[in-house]
Amino acid sequence: MNKNQSAVVLLSGGMDSCVCAAIAAREHGAEHVAAMHISYGQRTEARERESFNQICDRLGIAKRMLIENRSLAQIGGSALTDNTIAVPESGHIGAGVPITYVPFRNAHFLSAAVSWAEVLGAETIYIGAVEQDSSGYPDCRPEYYDAFNQVIRVGTKEGGIEIATPLIALRKAEIIRRGLELGAPLELTWSCYTEQREACGVCDSCVLRLRAFEAAGVKDPLPYAARVAAHS
Amino acid sequence: MNKNQSAVVLLSGGMDSCVCAAIAAREHGAEHVAAMHISYGQRTEARERESFNQICDRLGIAKRMLIENRSLAQIGGSALTDNTIAVPESGHIGAGVPITYVPFRNAHFLSAAVSWAEVLGAETIYIGAVEQDSSGYPDCRPEYYDAFNQVIRVGTKEGGIEIATPLIALRKAEIIRRGLELGAPLELTWSCYTEQREACGVCDSCVLRLRAFEAAGVKDPLPYAARVAAHS
Repeated sequence: MNKNQSAVVLLSGGMDSCVCAAIAAREHGAEHVAAMHISYGQRTEARERESFNQICDRLGIAKRMLIENRSLAQIGGSALTDNTIAVPESGHIGAGVPITYVPFRNAHFLSAAVSWAEVLGAETIYIGAVEQDSSGYPDCRPEYYDAFNQVIRVGTKEGGIEIATPLIALRKAEIIRRGLELGAPLELTWSCYTEQREACGVCDSCVLRLRAFEAAGVKDPLPYAARVAAHS
Repeated sequence: MNKNQSAVVLLSGGMDSCVCAAIAAREHGAEHVAAMHISYGQRTEARERESFNQICDRLGIAKRMLIENRSLAQIGGSALTDNTIAVPESGHIGAGVPITYVPFRNAHFLSAAVSWAEVLGAETIYIGAVEQDSSGYPDCRPEYYDAFNQVIRVGTKEGGIEIATPLIALRKAEIIRRGLELGAPLELTWSCYTEQREACGVCDSCVLRLRAFEAAGVKDPLPYAARVAAHS
């Protein structure tokens, strides 16, 4: 390959993508990392965008693209994008694909990242997908990324672009430890599916996050709603 | 599969997708076909959307979704979405991937179609991709759709959705003949990359279309700019 060593990172503003961006910045140098954030009508859109920008500022990532994907909310079918479907409190984790699954969402995100990588001449796309300790989404498994890499190989102008999933096999507690080692700004991240000021502490995403901090023996720096904070 | 037999068709409003929609309507019944159209900042956006609606009306497809994908134009890198890059006149056909290639475009389209198919419970996604007589886009080849089908198998909630490319191995003249047999309204389609009232007749898309009608021995019903019409 005669390409430069630049990379695109998909950065939602959550804990996993923050650590993933820190890894990309370490491996490529922040000046060679381009960060993409996608608003798709999810409930905490504004809060996540704020986290995205703050994390980029902290990591020194200047090249950014904010994308609005309105099709996912238009198509619906998920509690994250349809306010008539309630976000469940945890207790479902591990029991099949939950209602917070946004149909085929990650393919939309990867498609945008690949398009941008083709234009930039970037050769790696980082995404913070995690299989273990996850909500059970089908598009967070290694075989999904293997298959998508094949689509990229045969479906781009020059090939030479590959998705990297450095967190996919890690436990959530390991991701926190890796983030702390790298100086990833976990205090700037946002994980809650429903709230934008104080995390609810009871949706799947909050529960997985709180369990992870507990397992890592570290206090989660985020503010949580009172009923949760009282028990933590 | 315990699904119904419904289908999603990606319908740009061009000749190939029109014939593809006619095939889907014949195979599933128009009442079981849902048509998706994507505006992505291409030069002839309004004209294509008009064709989409007229073709749906004629084929009896009531279920429609119009999507606006602004990310492709934001990302750029193509003469179709960037007005500072000229659309070349033909003569390049067959000489590598042309500048009208929109980076990784079809993955955006397929992703939206798969998301919708998951919500609708549809099991087939029709796309009018053509390999032969084409502009040489990498995302119009059978191996691309094979790879994408694998992404769908591993990356959706229940699987059971497959992309169908009924035109992929046909010559353009055969597509016209197939369309005429099916009563596909070719007179309502739009192919030109640059113009919206009279087709330019000189972009790759017009040239491929005109060659196809000539090979099929049929007159193209579309209006062409005078300099082209004089020679046809």
